Amino acid sequence: MSAPTNSTSTAGVTLVGGGPGPWDLITLRGAQALAEADVILADHLGPTDELDKIIDTSGKELIDVAKLPYGRQVAQEETNRLMIEHARAGRKVVRLKGGDPYVFGRGFEELTALAEAGIACHVVPGVTSAISVPAAAGIPATQRGVVHSFTVVSGHLPPGDPKSLVDWSALVRAGGTIIVIMGVRHVDAIAAALIDAGLSAGTPAAAIQEGTTQSQRTVKTTAGRLAAEMTAAGIGSPAVYVFGDVAGLSAN
Amino acid sequence: MSAPTNSTSTAGVTLVGGGPGPWDLITLRGAQALAEADVILADHLGPTDELDKIIDTSGKELIDVAKLPYGRQVAQEETNRLMIEHARAGRKVVRLKGGDPYVFGRGFEELTALAEAGIACHVVPGVTSAISVPAAAGIPATQRGVVHSFTVVSGHLPPGDPKSLVDWSALVRAGGTIIVIMGVRHVDAIAAALIDAGLSAGTPAAAIQEGTTQSQRTVKTTAGRLAAEMTAAGIGSPAVYVFGDVAGLSAN
Repeated sequence: MSAPTNSTSTAGVTLVGGGPGPWDLITLRGAQALAEADVILADHLGPTDELDKIIDTSGKELIDVAKLPYGRQVAQEETNRLMIEHARAGRKVVRLKGGDPYVFGRGFEELTALAEAGIACHVVPGVTSAISVPAAAGIPATQRGVVHSFTVVSGHLPPGDPKSLVDWSALVRAGGTIIVIMGVRHVDAIAAALIDAGLSAGTPAAAIQEGTTQSQRTVKTTAGRLAAEMTAAGIGSPAVYVFGDVAGLSAN
Repeated sequence: MSAPTNSTSTAGVTLVGGGPGPWDLITLRGAQALAEADVILADHLGPTDELDKIIDTSGKELIDVAKLPYGRQVAQEETNRLMIEHARAGRKVVRLKGGDPYVFGRGFEELTALAEAGIACHVVPGVTSAISVPAAAGIPATQRGVVHSFTVVSGHLPPGDPKSLVDWSALVRAGGTIIVIMGVRHVDAIAAALIDAGLSAGTPAAAIQEGTTQSQRTVKTTAGRLAAEMTAAGIGSPAVYVFGDVAGLSAN
């Protein structure tokens, strides 16, 4: 393969979207950035466990930021501090993230922290789990003549939570596919809110745990049955679930 | 790099998401499928013009399905027929698509046509333009504390069109980032519909033409000014536009 058009060989930090998990779902540009890196800061999302299938890791410093001994917000500040410290020392730093850096990935927060420190930062997009995990279970986000939009929404807060920025009933009226990530804990409340807002309880729905990996497990059911079926099947985090006609499509 | 965990070396068809345009934004798995292919069917989206930077194309048959001498629907049927014909002849076929196959890519339609013909089909996800194009202009789909959802919507039909499956006013109430693709022609009507539904005319908005490529051009403005600013700047297809606070974020 040729040299990349956008070399990451300059000093600074590259935020790389690692994709949904399997090592070969990272982009060529992301792999190139890893190959050129002196320091790699990774967590447990994306292809971290299979880095040695992508690059020769010898001579590189690997930092597991998921093991930083702090609470979540402090760990983020410590991650930022480490990126800045290594970049200031003239090292090429890659911050490897699961999925895409700008889809619920705190990527822009890290970019901002680097900019405030005067550190150059490049962003390499990745394959987002929000789309690729349903796809791995045979569920397209869109289908011509069936649905012309899809919404990706964080389910980390239940409907009605004072901190929630989501109007779940409006999502039903919008008429598109609804893809929920980080929402296993609140699936009962979220499905109920959608049905209360007018979503038919018979609307196709599906949940996919560890999608795209060898451990993938899928439940296909209806909106009204989703929470119970997930419990019955023992579907836990990390999982994505989908409401909409696309969840009921079959290729055969 | 190691052998892929999911080899595409069997007969059949692989639908590959080629990413938003630059050759190195395809995944390693997608590049591997191209390397193993006997026949590649591509259109003008994705990295088609730079295939020789990804693989050695000698000995492979390249079919430009964008040049099939038919109207759009007939061209789709002819694409399906060609995939089936080559697969039945025992050739490894890659259908290379721009972005992700399942985001407005007719990927599931092609999978269905292949399944009906008894042809095995694998899908390799790609980096979708809907997220990576705004990202290339510095706009994240989400930002913690600012927005917890985003909707990707096709703008190929104007609001109120009898064939439209989108409730644009509900999208405003849903409260998330709104990302419109294939909507240059109808930007005036779409922005007006959103503002009529209660979106503040001062909401940040941006349009990006040929995002992620060397030809990228960006306009950052407000919802109320978007259509006029796009016209003034001569922003044309292919372009993505975004409504929401994320379009007004600055890293500095």
